[in-house]
Amino acid sequence: MSSNMTIANLSNAYREGSLTPAGVMEDIRHRAQEFSDRNIWIHLLSAEEQQPYLAALAEKDPQQCPLWGIPFAIKDNIDLAGIPTTAGCEAFTFTPSASAPVVQQLLDAGAIPVGKTNLDQFATGLNGTRSPWGPCRNAFDPDYISGGSSSGSAVSVALGLASFSLGTDTAGSGRVPAAFNNLVGVKPTRGLLSARGMVPACRSLDCISIMALNTDDANTVLACAEGFDAGDGYSRHNCYDNLSRHYGYRQGSLKVGVLPEDQLQFFGDSGYQAAYAATLEKLTELGFELVEVDYRPFDEAARLLYEGPWVAERYIACQPLIEENPAALHPVVRAIVEPGGNPKATELFRAQYRLEALKQVCVATLDQLDCLLTPTAGRLFTVEEMLAEPILYNSQLGYYTNFMNLLDMTSVAVPTAFTAAGLPFGITLVGNCFSDRVLLSIANRIQQGLALPVGIECTDAAGAEPAGLPQVQQPVADNRRIDVLVCGAHLEGLPLNWQLTERGAVLKSRTRTKPCYRMYALAGGPPFRPGLIMDEQNGAAIDVEIWSVPSAEFGSFVAGIPAPLGIGKVLVEDGSVVTGFICEPRGVEGATDITNLGGWKAYLASR
Amino acid sequence: MSSNMTIANLSNAYREGSLTPAGVMEDIRHRAQEFSDRNIWIHLLSAEEQQPYLAALAEKDPQQCPLWGIPFAIKDNIDLAGIPTTAGCEAFTFTPSASAPVVQQLLDAGAIPVGKTNLDQFATGLNGTRSPWGPCRNAFDPDYISGGSSSGSAVSVALGLASFSLGTDTAGSGRVPAAFNNLVGVKPTRGLLSARGMVPACRSLDCISIMALNTDDANTVLACAEGFDAGDGYSRHNCYDNLSRHYGYRQGSLKVGVLPEDQLQFFGDSGYQAAYAATLEKLTELGFELVEVDYRPFDEAARLLYEGPWVAERYIACQPLIEENPAALHPVVRAIVEPGGNPKATELFRAQYRLEALKQVCVATLDQLDCLLTPTAGRLFTVEEMLAEPILYNSQLGYYTNFMNLLDMTSVAVPTAFTAAGLPFGITLVGNCFSDRVLLSIANRIQQGLALPVGIECTDAAGAEPAGLPQVQQPVADNRRIDVLVCGAHLEGLPLNWQLTERGAVLKSRTRTKPCYRMYALAGGPPFRPGLIMDEQNGAAIDVEIWSVPSAEFGSFVAGIPAPLGIGKVLVEDGSVVTGFICEPRGVEGATDITNLGGWKAYLASR
Repeated sequence: MSSNMTIANLSNAYREGSLTPAGVMEDIRHRAQEFSDRNIWIHLLSAEEQQPYLAALAEKDPQQCPLWGIPFAIKDNIDLAGIPTTAGCEAFTFTPSASAPVVQQLLDAGAIPVGKTNLDQFATGLNGTRSPWGPCRNAFDPDYISGGSSSGSAVSVALGLASFSLGTDTAGSGRVPAAFNNLVGVKPTRGLLSARGMVPACRSLDCISIMALNTDDANTVLACAEGFDAGDGYSRHNCYDNLSRHYGYRQGSLKVGVLPEDQLQFFGDSGYQAAYAATLEKLTELGFELVEVDYRPFDEAARLLYEGPWVAERYIACQPLIEENPAALHPVVRAIVEPGGNPKATELFRAQYRLEALKQVCVATLDQLDCLLTPTAGRLFTVEEMLAEPILYNSQLGYYTNFMNLLDMTSVAVPTAFTAAGLPFGITLVGNCFSDRVLLSIANRIQQGLALPVGIECTDAAGAEPAGLPQVQQPVADNRRIDVLVCGAHLEGLPLNWQLTERGAVLKSRTRTKPCYRMYALAGGPPFRPGLIMDEQNGAAIDVEIWSVPSAEFGSFVAGIPAPLGIGKVLVEDGSVVTGFICEPRGVEGATDITNLGGWKAYLASR
Repeated sequence: MSSNMTIANLSNAYREGSLTPAGVMEDIRHRAQEFSDRNIWIHLLSAEEQQPYLAALAEKDPQQCPLWGIPFAIKDNIDLAGIPTTAGCEAFTFTPSASAPVVQQLLDAGAIPVGKTNLDQFATGLNGTRSPWGPCRNAFDPDYISGGSSSGSAVSVALGLASFSLGTDTAGSGRVPAAFNNLVGVKPTRGLLSARGMVPACRSLDCISIMALNTDDANTVLACAEGFDAGDGYSRHNCYDNLSRHYGYRQGSLKVGVLPEDQLQFFGDSGYQAAYAATLEKLTELGFELVEVDYRPFDEAARLLYEGPWVAERYIACQPLIEENPAALHPVVRAIVEPGGNPKATELFRAQYRLEALKQVCVATLDQLDCLLTPTAGRLFTVEEMLAEPILYNSQLGYYTNFMNLLDMTSVAVPTAFTAAGLPFGITLVGNCFSDRVLLSIANRIQQGLALPVGIECTDAAGAEPAGLPQVQQPVADNRRIDVLVCGAHLEGLPLNWQLTERGAVLKSRTRTKPCYRMYALAGGPPFRPGLIMDEQNGAAIDVEIWSVPSAEFGSFVAGIPAPLGIGKVLVEDGSVVTGFICEPRGVEGATDITNLGGWKAYLASR
């Protein structure tokens, strides 16, 4: 069963009656013991502690609860009611009476908590060794680090001890461990998930993140976990185009930014270097167009995070502990956080000014692309290596991740290869804020194109079918722009064309309709306007243009169209159906039929 | 001529040949001498300095240049090429080689600079007395303060020495002097105008602002001055619904927030208290619905500005001067700015956390309203009073203004009354970011409704017609939402209604069409759908619903509608024309005519 813990598989098994949630939980508790060397859990829920959640399932309709009976792990800096929250520091521990809103939403959707997971203390680290509960170890090879700070949350899912997990991600804590354990890791847009009930790392940047076996699961969990929370100052309203229904299989040509050779860093890990090269080769085969972008402004922003005054936020997060009992902190964490009390507000403002300038450059870069693509991490270290060089190697782990929240970007980490040694490697897709579903849809295409095994299966399920990757996906197109067919006064160069261009529309193509339309010169004007009426028997092909209009601006365009014209669907020569101008029948009564001229510009020229 | 310096009036006079730009400029230089007691100018341009700008007019087409030959004043913390920028501090002075982008855009549009205006040093003040160039004095009575920090920029326009002016507004510097001198003051959305080439006050909050005689002029100047500037880290892209074409006369019922009695502050100024009461009375007569809102969260945000760590930004702005030569600063300004070097980054982060929490509350409050309305200032002080109590009285001037940029709001100050002593009083309209044109359109309605004189005219042009208020305005409706008429599966309770609700649409009314439609049950489904076809001879009234849909989400709604349906215009029983569902004629061939049932729900019930 451990080989197939995707939400779809578990839900099917529950529906068929081949498994029960209680049975799955018991099995998980049993199997968790096999992996005690990994130091996954700070608190594994007992059967008694789990009982109320299982009992509540009886009241829930599985049809209405997409996570009905699905086991999940919670990073131990996020509150689960009645269970201690440690943030990886015993002296800090408290027991919350309420669950974090995100946790509560998952519970409401039927998910069952398995336990609270080990982490780099106060989420300060990307490696998983900075914990009094012992270094968390990689699911694939315990000699290697798990990555962090959401260490146990990653390893638990990879080993089939949970279907998905919650991590947090300020600098890369949700992505790096996902990559090191063959998982999909979603670092959502800042504010898309409430961060209440999370022990802050850098409160202005923190995100609760999601780790799952595949993009379908990640999207399902995201849809349950997201939502505006007026009680969280950094919470933001989602936009329509980033709702769960816009997730699917991203088709069409994709323009993806990659780093030039000399800006890539693998820190001596030739396995990762080869895996990255192999990944790009595969993606090219899958039809991705790779274009080089300058990573230096992203990198400069990244370095502000630990080298700049944002460490002051980490200081706030463990004040007064660090002032009254600093010895209670992990020594490496203490060394990082303690100087956070020093910077001046003037330094912070200066850094914020610089950051805003960098953001202008980086956001504009991403606006030209479907996404940016980087390795998630440049090197996978052994536990021994990490303990010997705890600061330098950690900062190397953040080379591709630290800029993300400072620049208000969103990202999805997705596995793409295994090294010759059988260790997982993955990439991160990066987009501007609120492109979460675009990235997940691209990641879906990558997952389906590569058809890798999920989680730990590759090492113990030889010959098994790659699980958890559904075969058929609902395709999604670019949902931030809409193709609009025009045939009259909105054509390029004609009097109403400005109504398109002032909305940021761009001309995509000049083409013709299917030969099934008649065109009429309507009464009235200026501006003079034609009407297009379908006539399958006696129609002709009419010259038209297709414009790509920003979705957010199209509504006001439609609202401004006077009767008898309207916006419906028009059949194009190439067989496609495009949103475009139609005409009410009343409009063509007594109007001049100009079909024989083949288009509006030809008619204007003929007058 | 001084009585009629609106852009429309001057442009007309140029067109008719009754005035020339050179003549107007000469006259201004001449009249400026009469008002030397006001301390308006730090640098009044000589005829020689003005010559290149006048000469350039010959190359410009007045049709293409909305500010052709229009004189304007520039606050002396904004760069004009070749003229010293002092920021009100001689030791700080430098001579820029390029104009600020905003100034350059105005020059490109044909505007002629008159001079650089006096200000509270480093824009630190709301009163106009903190300048080595002498206290700037009120246009209406030199015993009174001008307000500040954009002091000379206000007084020059009020006295007819410029048609409009640029100020800056971080805490209220563009609004307070507008109110004290009977002007419209626009504090635009942060980042709508480039702030490059402006001496920063608080760089994360600074806005270049506009003062003008009426809202039409303010909108014209705003349209010339706005625009994204990638070179300014805080610059932002405008949204379609906030473009200049959405400015006009805001009609319809307006829900306007006002402060409860016990949260109003007039600091002992009974004249202002009475003027405010008279204003509310007038606005109620004009059809404004006034609703009380809790001002406390706004006030708490306001107090963060000077009592919190944002003073560190002012410190940065005059560092190294304040470190190397602090005696060069105005003593009051020095007393305010010098402690700005002390706050820790931790204090700033804590204040930013608090601010974000307050913003959630305040933004949600404004989302329920067309705007919030407050007095612009609670009291108008004499120069003598202000000099005697320079800190306390200044902070009283900011009671209604300091929150604005911290909460990322936009505002328009508009004159509404005169006190018994003949001193101007005004209110400020407040909206969430990017509602600039909504506010200007409401301000237009207020100006037209009150028909006050503009600038200083009331005191010297007895009997003159109120000038500068055009009689006819293009009406604008709420351009952030669109009314959409539905008649079939999108009706409340029917299968496709979620397509409206998930986009944040709300039901506005249930009504019927004009009796000129026939309704058909189309083939296909589920979902089953009707088609509405106009038939003026044999039509009937059909039951419909009107939903209010966010403009930004309507485009994707339209794109999702399958043929033969579309979105056009539908005639409603009450005579209005509403955007709504129409149907291509091909769709009703062979479909069942259900007109006699009077609506889709009746049809469903009949089956």
